[in-house]
Amino acid sequence: MLDVALLGCGGSIPVSHRFLSAVLIRYKGKMCLIDTGEYVQVALKELGWGLKNIDYILLTHYHGDHLFGLPGLLQTISNSERTEPLTIVGPKGLDKVSNAIKLLVPYLPYELVYLEHPDNIQFLDMEINTLPLQHTIPCLGYSFTIKRQRRFDVNKAINNNVPKEHWSKLQKGNTVIVGDVTYTPEMVLGEERRGLKFSYITDTRPIPEIPSFIQTSNLFVCEGMYGSDDDKEKAENNYHMTFREAATLAKLGNVDELILTHFSPKLEKPENYLLNAQEVFPNKNLGRNLLVRSLKFPD
Amino acid sequence: MLDVALLGCGGSIPVSHRFLSAVLIRYKGKMCLIDTGEYVQVALKELGWGLKNIDYILLTHYHGDHLFGLPGLLQTISNSERTEPLTIVGPKGLDKVSNAIKLLVPYLPYELVYLEHPDNIQFLDMEINTLPLQHTIPCLGYSFTIKRQRRFDVNKAINNNVPKEHWSKLQKGNTVIVGDVTYTPEMVLGEERRGLKFSYITDTRPIPEIPSFIQTSNLFVCEGMYGSDDDKEKAENNYHMTFREAATLAKLGNVDELILTHFSPKLEKPENYLLNAQEVFPNKNLGRNLLVRSLKFPD
Repeated sequence: MLDVALLGCGGSIPVSHRFLSAVLIRYKGKMCLIDTGEYVQVALKELGWGLKNIDYILLTHYHGDHLFGLPGLLQTISNSERTEPLTIVGPKGLDKVSNAIKLLVPYLPYELVYLEHPDNIQFLDMEINTLPLQHTIPCLGYSFTIKRQRRFDVNKAINNNVPKEHWSKLQKGNTVIVGDVTYTPEMVLGEERRGLKFSYITDTRPIPEIPSFIQTSNLFVCEGMYGSDDDKEKAENNYHMTFREAATLAKLGNVDELILTHFSPKLEKPENYLLNAQEVFPNKNLGRNLLVRSLKFPD
Repeated sequence: MLDVALLGCGGSIPVSHRFLSAVLIRYKGKMCLIDTGEYVQVALKELGWGLKNIDYILLTHYHGDHLFGLPGLLQTISNSERTEPLTIVGPKGLDKVSNAIKLLVPYLPYELVYLEHPDNIQFLDMEINTLPLQHTIPCLGYSFTIKRQRRFDVNKAINNNVPKEHWSKLQKGNTVIVGDVTYTPEMVLGEERRGLKFSYITDTRPIPEIPSFIQTSNLFVCEGMYGSDDDKEKAENNYHMTFREAATLAKLGNVDELILTHFSPKLEKPENYLLNAQEVFPNKNLGRNLLVRSLKFPD
């Protein structure tokens, strides 16, 4: 099971009724946090999943609404008795963040590891991938994929004349060679099964690389800075998206569910514009503080 | 009139129901902000006095709960159309703050001026004074004093045989010499009148220098990290104060009103301990979010 918590849904500057857009992912007791806008530690506290097991902090980019809660968060994690290293990931320019952190939070009881623009990260048996986006400064999208193991197919094994003594090895993905006969896992495994996938895209124009990056996500959280179609020009100028543009990505990406986030502070009633997304992609929802989804294999 | 707004009353780490301890002072349309913990910009927004006219940001010290809202605040002030320089004041170590700000908020449409540990600052006709405190790192207390002009005393002027033609000059504080006769302002001015004074002391032990520094303040806002007398040892170890210690300073300082602030996150019901302050200094109040006092000359 992959738990995904949208901590907040605000963009640009903090406002009292919306935490800034950020996501906490929990998998097998370990956690990854995406983005650390001001007050993220309070949102995390309200969510109640703890701080100690955050192993990765993934930054989409270095604008304040995604970054300025980092010093306070790192400081407060100190109180959680964490001693294991914590890895901070982000696009080009991460050295500026690390230098600022050194100045502002010089003493931490755990090590910080910085990882600039990796293509992918292996986190337990989950793969985290990155995609360069199109914003005013370097920005990354993130996806999280958990592959599902194929079932052992007894009939297939018997039909392929695989001796029982090799079944276990083959099921684990090993090939067995006996004399001049080669037994492959393919000879005993059932069909491919859909895994779990979560994608997070914020602070970007809807570039053509996004649909394949988010393809068949169970959950796609995407920025919708502007609700009205009339704000498309504003979205273009500020390198953001409208609800309709986000929904179009969700459709092209064949995702199961779209959650919109990163609303402009001026977008007081995002619900008034939800129809713009609905017309393109019906299974859409508005982000809100501490919205949680648990993604599970279907059976 | 000197308006003083306590923005919040929390200490150590941000919690959802208390903004972190900080004070905004408004005088003749200009403003000074003391301390910038995380989310201070949201507290300022809720207060509604605007951001554009903040000319000084006075930092007591560089712990996160007093500092980490600074990058976001400076960024958001950019949206206020401010172009005049803004001065940031703080104790020794201000270079680290300025370097971190350069890394995190590299582009601002106004200049930042840094002023490390000044003895005093003249702000309009108000004098701001600093006092080194006793915390785990360098820390400053601040007081704000507005002197009141003495009244013109017609009877005194007549009794002192001061010709009417010199009254105006003397009233303005000038001395007039006519031949071998010297006329001084003292010959026409009434008695000294009490001015306005506000003092802010946080993150310190109650050192002996504080009572004279805060002497006869109309309003004294002081930290009370711990409510219970039983926490005195904790206060000593962490370089903070109990309610009773803060109240003792208020009494020794002959202030009019004490407001307690900077409550520990663990101090959930500060009202339960108010009697500890009351026993020493009756005119005490608990700080709360957006508590405003307007200090005026009595007549």
